[in-house]
Amino acid sequence: MTGIGSRTGGETMHVPPGWVRDGAGRLLAAGRPVAELADAHGTPLFVYDGALVEARVRAFRAAMPQGLRLHYAVKANPMPELLARVAPLVEGFDVASGGELGHARAAGMAGGQIGFAGPGKRDWEIEAAVREGALLQVESAGELARVRAIAQRLGRPARVALRVNPPFRLRGSGMHMGGGASPFGIDAAEVPAVLAALDGSGLIFEGFHLFAGSQNLDWQALAAMSAHSIALVAELAAHAPAPPRLVTLGGGFGVPYFPADRPLDVAALGAALSRQLAARPPVLGATHFAFELGRWLVAEAGIYLTRVVDRKRSAGQTFLVTDGGLHHQLAATGNLGTVVRRNYPLALADRAGGPVEQVNVVGCLCTPLDRLGDRVWLPEARPGDLIAVFMAGAYGRTASPEGFLGHPPAGERLVG
Amino acid sequence: MTGIGSRTGGETMHVPPGWVRDGAGRLLAAGRPVAELADAHGTPLFVYDGALVEARVRAFRAAMPQGLRLHYAVKANPMPELLARVAPLVEGFDVASGGELGHARAAGMAGGQIGFAGPGKRDWEIEAAVREGALLQVESAGELARVRAIAQRLGRPARVALRVNPPFRLRGSGMHMGGGASPFGIDAAEVPAVLAALDGSGLIFEGFHLFAGSQNLDWQALAAMSAHSIALVAELAAHAPAPPRLVTLGGGFGVPYFPADRPLDVAALGAALSRQLAARPPVLGATHFAFELGRWLVAEAGIYLTRVVDRKRSAGQTFLVTDGGLHHQLAATGNLGTVVRRNYPLALADRAGGPVEQVNVVGCLCTPLDRLGDRVWLPEARPGDLIAVFMAGAYGRTASPEGFLGHPPAGERLVG
Repeated sequence: MTGIGSRTGGETMHVPPGWVRDGAGRLLAAGRPVAELADAHGTPLFVYDGALVEARVRAFRAAMPQGLRLHYAVKANPMPELLARVAPLVEGFDVASGGELGHARAAGMAGGQIGFAGPGKRDWEIEAAVREGALLQVESAGELARVRAIAQRLGRPARVALRVNPPFRLRGSGMHMGGGASPFGIDAAEVPAVLAALDGSGLIFEGFHLFAGSQNLDWQALAAMSAHSIALVAELAAHAPAPPRLVTLGGGFGVPYFPADRPLDVAALGAALSRQLAARPPVLGATHFAFELGRWLVAEAGIYLTRVVDRKRSAGQTFLVTDGGLHHQLAATGNLGTVVRRNYPLALADRAGGPVEQVNVVGCLCTPLDRLGDRVWLPEARPGDLIAVFMAGAYGRTASPEGFLGHPPAGERLVG
Repeated sequence: MTGIGSRTGGETMHVPPGWVRDGAGRLLAAGRPVAELADAHGTPLFVYDGALVEARVRAFRAAMPQGLRLHYAVKANPMPELLARVAPLVEGFDVASGGELGHARAAGMAGGQIGFAGPGKRDWEIEAAVREGALLQVESAGELARVRAIAQRLGRPARVALRVNPPFRLRGSGMHMGGGASPFGIDAAEVPAVLAALDGSGLIFEGFHLFAGSQNLDWQALAAMSAHSIALVAELAAHAPAPPRLVTLGGGFGVPYFPADRPLDVAALGAALSRQLAARPPVLGATHFAFELGRWLVAEAGIYLTRVVDRKRSAGQTFLVTDGGLHHQLAATGNLGTVVRRNYPLALADRAGGPVEQVNVVGCLCTPLDRLGDRVWLPEARPGDLIAVFMAGAYGRTASPEGFLGHPPAGERLVG
């Protein structure tokens, strides 16, 4: 096996674990050269390695306290085959729309193991969730009233958890979802009043849902968040009609995208959680706790393969123009939720070795936003060569403007 | 008619011309309340007013010198009915992919009136362009070699223009596409050598294409760009096998999105262009000149209608949660090509008047990125009310990650 990494600036790019090359320098996915997949299925192509997702699940189980539940956040990657691969590995799916609820059911996840969070649930979505027996993570008093009305109209009970907007935020997160005015959840201070209105008419209270931030690599920040969350729900539980059966502690487990990033220390986080759960207040004695993870489970398990169409020089720089771009990989071009554009790790996929050079890797879109690699070091590449962009398993295809400029969609393959 | 505008911060939002309310305060599109369109076709819904696009074309003709051609840049909005509405109004379509080439032909545009620019043209796209007799705006020497090979293989001539990466940039542009190392076009200094290789074997030289920037509101900057461009192509034309038949001066006409923005003075720009073209060097005496405009023609002609699903308070702020969001209107949420997020103009669409309040208008996606209006002033709105986001005619639906979080796609209607 030869090295994978390429450099950006002076630093070696992080390449996620599990991606290796064969003796001929070809990047492999589940033991098979990805170039063969590209030849067979065309480019651009997303390749997801199910075994790497499974390894992540095992790492979670090994690090976390016994009984801590793991839910998959479908929004990170809703590819049907991937959902079917993940469904038996986890205790539940979290969905963010009626569409995702349908995907989850189609993948074989039982309705009772599906949680539905999202600030703008429409009536038809609430109705579908009630019919499926899914857990509605209620975002406001107004939404709770609509859930009650729909449950009564359907003559079926609705399972509800209250999503709490906590008075703290997850420090060091890529995105914050708490600690201030938020469209997500019910302000903690308002929760007791909403709980008092849970009079049981068609509503089954199941617990609480918190989500304080995402893409966090600092286990101590995540541990502090879970400690705060457990203390908060213990307080709130005193106002509930019944002890919470389930508390979802959110997600927020980050993955390293950039050279300075260090992987999250899940062992340390798990040890902290074990201590916290062992010491939890009696009102939470019978409560199940869950994390809902998306990015951490799947981001590193996916690559995006794109073929070089043209190679050109301009003003002293070399450009590799590929058949992919921001229409499939918006986040990798720095155009989704980032202020400073940084390169995702990428590599030449069909061969290794040879002299390296500094190049810009751009997409085929006719816009300067479409840049996958800015002044990265790669072995000399030519038209026909294959580039792999790593970290493509989460928030890739569906988080990108696929229809932009009328190019064909990317393919997707699950291997492993 | 009552006022349209809402405020953002202390300033009144710009509302594009042509959008008015009836006596009952209902926003109209082509004389019809948009609320009726929303009721008939559901929300979220894009509404494009063809008459407003036509008015823009007339404004261009009135301001610009006789004979200056107008091409529509399909990438701005490729809705089929809109393309069919625009096709008879302009001298050509500019496309950026094989897919857009197909859309252009389906809308009735003749192949010979279509120009195809884009840095990563694949062989099948070049082949389709040659078969249709479209003008290939060639981006590199390597691409030119591929065009020649394909033309020879097909036994059909290929019409080519050279896209030039100019040594200047359009100052004050939203995005730059010249004046440095670029994936777009051939560096001006390299153009003579490429022209020398245009030995006529299957290639018909038609002219030059420049594109130095986009979204510019400064007519003097655009006039300077056209003056530089005309001087540059006159120089380059001395090396060409024939005088250029067509020079595309790019686009770059901006539209005012934000309160401090002033509309582009097209009359002043047109007068400057008249002077420049009257004084052009003899080598360009028989040359046609064209602008390719997208955003300027259609942005203001479109609105995005989304319905309020929930109204909630959090930490002293009011949130209107809608059934729309960044999956349809990525740019309006500040997540495409912008560093500082600013509000697009928006308004309550189904009624006017009443006391105003400061609110956040958010989408239904479960991400904090999904914010359509940050602390804007609107009349008090309730669930069921309709919000119109203006400036939605360009780079809206197709420039957004429609599949993100599994929500339904937005509808589109052309009126007027």
